[in-house]
Amino acid sequence: MSRKEKAPGASSRGATLKESSHIHSQDRRSFLRGGTLLAGATVASAAGLTGARAQRLEIPPSGKEMGHIIEAEAYGMPSKFEAKVKRRRTDVLVNKQNWSDWSMTPLQSQLGIVTPNGLFFERHHAGVPDIDPDHHVLVIHGMVKQPLKFSMSDLMRYPSVSKFHFLECSGNGLTDWTKAASKTVQQSHGLLSCAQWTGVPLATLLDEAGVDPAAKWALFEGADGSTHARSIPMDKVLADTLLVWGQNGEMLRPEQGYPLRAFVPGWEGNVSVKWLRRVKIGDQPWHLRSETARYTDPMPEGKWRQFSFMMECKSVITRPSGGMKLQGPGSYEIEGFAWSGNGSIKAVDVTLDGGKNWREARLEEPALDKCLTRFRYTWNWDGGPAKIASRAVDSTGYVQPTVSDIAKARALVGFVQHHNGVFPWSIGQDGEVKNAIV
Amino acid sequence: MSRKEKAPGASSRGATLKESSHIHSQDRRSFLRGGTLLAGATVASAAGLTGARAQRLEIPPSGKEMGHIIEAEAYGMPSKFEAKVKRRRTDVLVNKQNWSDWSMTPLQSQLGIVTPNGLFFERHHAGVPDIDPDHHVLVIHGMVKQPLKFSMSDLMRYPSVSKFHFLECSGNGLTDWTKAASKTVQQSHGLLSCAQWTGVPLATLLDEAGVDPAAKWALFEGADGSTHARSIPMDKVLADTLLVWGQNGEMLRPEQGYPLRAFVPGWEGNVSVKWLRRVKIGDQPWHLRSETARYTDPMPEGKWRQFSFMMECKSVITRPSGGMKLQGPGSYEIEGFAWSGNGSIKAVDVTLDGGKNWREARLEEPALDKCLTRFRYTWNWDGGPAKIASRAVDSTGYVQPTVSDIAKARALVGFVQHHNGVFPWSIGQDGEVKNAIV
Repeated sequence: MSRKEKAPGASSRGATLKESSHIHSQDRRSFLRGGTLLAGATVASAAGLTGARAQRLEIPPSGKEMGHIIEAEAYGMPSKFEAKVKRRRTDVLVNKQNWSDWSMTPLQSQLGIVTPNGLFFERHHAGVPDIDPDHHVLVIHGMVKQPLKFSMSDLMRYPSVSKFHFLECSGNGLTDWTKAASKTVQQSHGLLSCAQWTGVPLATLLDEAGVDPAAKWALFEGADGSTHARSIPMDKVLADTLLVWGQNGEMLRPEQGYPLRAFVPGWEGNVSVKWLRRVKIGDQPWHLRSETARYTDPMPEGKWRQFSFMMECKSVITRPSGGMKLQGPGSYEIEGFAWSGNGSIKAVDVTLDGGKNWREARLEEPALDKCLTRFRYTWNWDGGPAKIASRAVDSTGYVQPTVSDIAKARALVGFVQHHNGVFPWSIGQDGEVKNAIV
Repeated sequence: MSRKEKAPGASSRGATLKESSHIHSQDRRSFLRGGTLLAGATVASAAGLTGARAQRLEIPPSGKEMGHIIEAEAYGMPSKFEAKVKRRRTDVLVNKQNWSDWSMTPLQSQLGIVTPNGLFFERHHAGVPDIDPDHHVLVIHGMVKQPLKFSMSDLMRYPSVSKFHFLECSGNGLTDWTKAASKTVQQSHGLLSCAQWTGVPLATLLDEAGVDPAAKWALFEGADGSTHARSIPMDKVLADTLLVWGQNGEMLRPEQGYPLRAFVPGWEGNVSVKWLRRVKIGDQPWHLRSETARYTDPMPEGKWRQFSFMMECKSVITRPSGGMKLQGPGSYEIEGFAWSGNGSIKAVDVTLDGGKNWREARLEEPALDKCLTRFRYTWNWDGGPAKIASRAVDSTGYVQPTVSDIAKARALVGFVQHHNGVFPWSIGQDGEVKNAIV
């Protein structure tokens, strides 16, 4: 039982939002009085049934068989009935080689704000290495008084912190700027996940190494076959960058950098270098290929912007979303996520008419810094065509822009990164929900 | 690389806390000046190395091979190097039949406050059923105006909430009242986990059903082979009881009640009935066998207390904990969990001398209502025998008692539930950490 992704038109349990209810009990009572859509099917119409009389109603049968016993030392898995809730390799931008690859989180099925580790999106440039933590070493060197090296057990002795933060690939949404290429929110926004990360502030280790006052940048480099590396400004390194070994209560998953990754809160995913083997301190960026040919933003007049690290404030409706189908007029619960690399979410507005009018959605606590925040809005659909979208505002006052707002400042050519535009879904009279970005 | 459970005396990475560091940078610098224990091994002793010179140091090699490619539609799993971090069936109180069984969370390895679903403790009375959500039905009946029945898709249309809450079995710790039976914190406290739960407030559904004003209790009954059932007072049902389908971002795991369970925040785990098939409303408790012969507390003069639902304020040190070994005098990070069924955690004190003196530990945000809260305390061990323990205080001002405090109010005979006593670990001169409850 889940909100599964389905092809448009297919019967979908998650999509058959044919009935809903209001959130205020007064509304709910009016709903009943109207004799229209009941959220629960009435099993007896007479009011005032006693407990004794109700017992004559059909109670669902109890299981008659013994269930599965506990496997000694098993690591638990989802129900077999949830087999379709999986991360998926790209199916919009076809990738015919497997080494530099990515998979996407099924956001249409995600509940709460924590992405299960087994569904956390993946992105890597040379496959996932199998690193033995007993032999993994991190070196801190460069413009420091005292170069240091650490085993994993050295690092795990430090006072650690655990923080909830989203992680988003800078390329999330790149197929859907000027055409509606993605059918589902997994395809359009699934390079986004959220976890509680555990590790040590890099500032703690650098304080021990003694950073040269002239240092301005740090290099993070991975131990995987691609030796992926990025240059990070010292201010961010010292502000809140972590070296993490934990993800949602357990050690990092291999595809998330086991046994050690950088974690740069709120910045594009590729700077949170995985399988981290060294941090080098310098006085200027390294201008690596990942900083000149990749992970740059095209600008007007043929210029390219380097080092646009920040994942700006963004939101998306995950339910109803592309591929789902509404089952006729009635009350529906609109739900989605909002997040900002610059702080916490202060408000989310929802439009039902393609941006003419906006209404404030409800935010769910805790609304944490640089973390997914859930919003909800109860909508009475009249059965006519509609165009729904969300627009988030973060704690700096920044308002999520539309694609046309972004197009005024940047050039939309090639594989354009950093798509934080408002993302609309259209609802047809048949109830089908489709990508309506253009 | 994890803080694994090991037999005492075995070499344990998690346990080899032979070096640590201070949390204040001034302390850390003194530490370096003293020339004693360095958290990072120095790779060059000369101060003021430039970036260029440091590059001649040995940098750990990068992988030369391509890694694993992304499996189409895989559900991700932990690294093979984490194979020992598993929930375990009881190994203190031997259980020679498998139908009514339990497994315990490896708290010594848990990071952050979220227990991964694959490590969440289990407890059931007739094994784990395989329930097809498309055929699962919930009925609400008894003293209501309008009996209702719901399919899973009906329920999932309601406005849902997502809340972080701990879940603890009332029997957690029952082997360790008057003797130190458990060797590890997984054995002594592992019937405890924490998740973000997603579902609908039961009050919403009852408002629709229309509860008779004379109703005082609700019956929750499961669809598993044991038909486990409990009576819950109406006040708690209406205050914050949820019917949940989500656990840490995905659908409930089968062993956690898939597709639907009750969740009664802060109360003993067995009342959060799994595989929920009906809620019956009545004016008195049902006095089921699970309420007379089981889940009761022995009291002085041969009396037994029924319906002691609340999991009172409690805490435990998970690191260092039983089975770990300190590697000589030095600075160690003491870490653990505190929680209360009555509210949030306001303070945790740590003792290093068996309760003579107490010092305040640091609490990590967010410190949520009825949720695990992490505490930390940096300790300079002088190498002599020590006895460490934690004591939590919750938002009602309740202070976690000692076992002897509890023994003044209750009788400790048979399988005694609700052990929230202060739990000490002894540290020997050899650094071995042992259960010191008596």
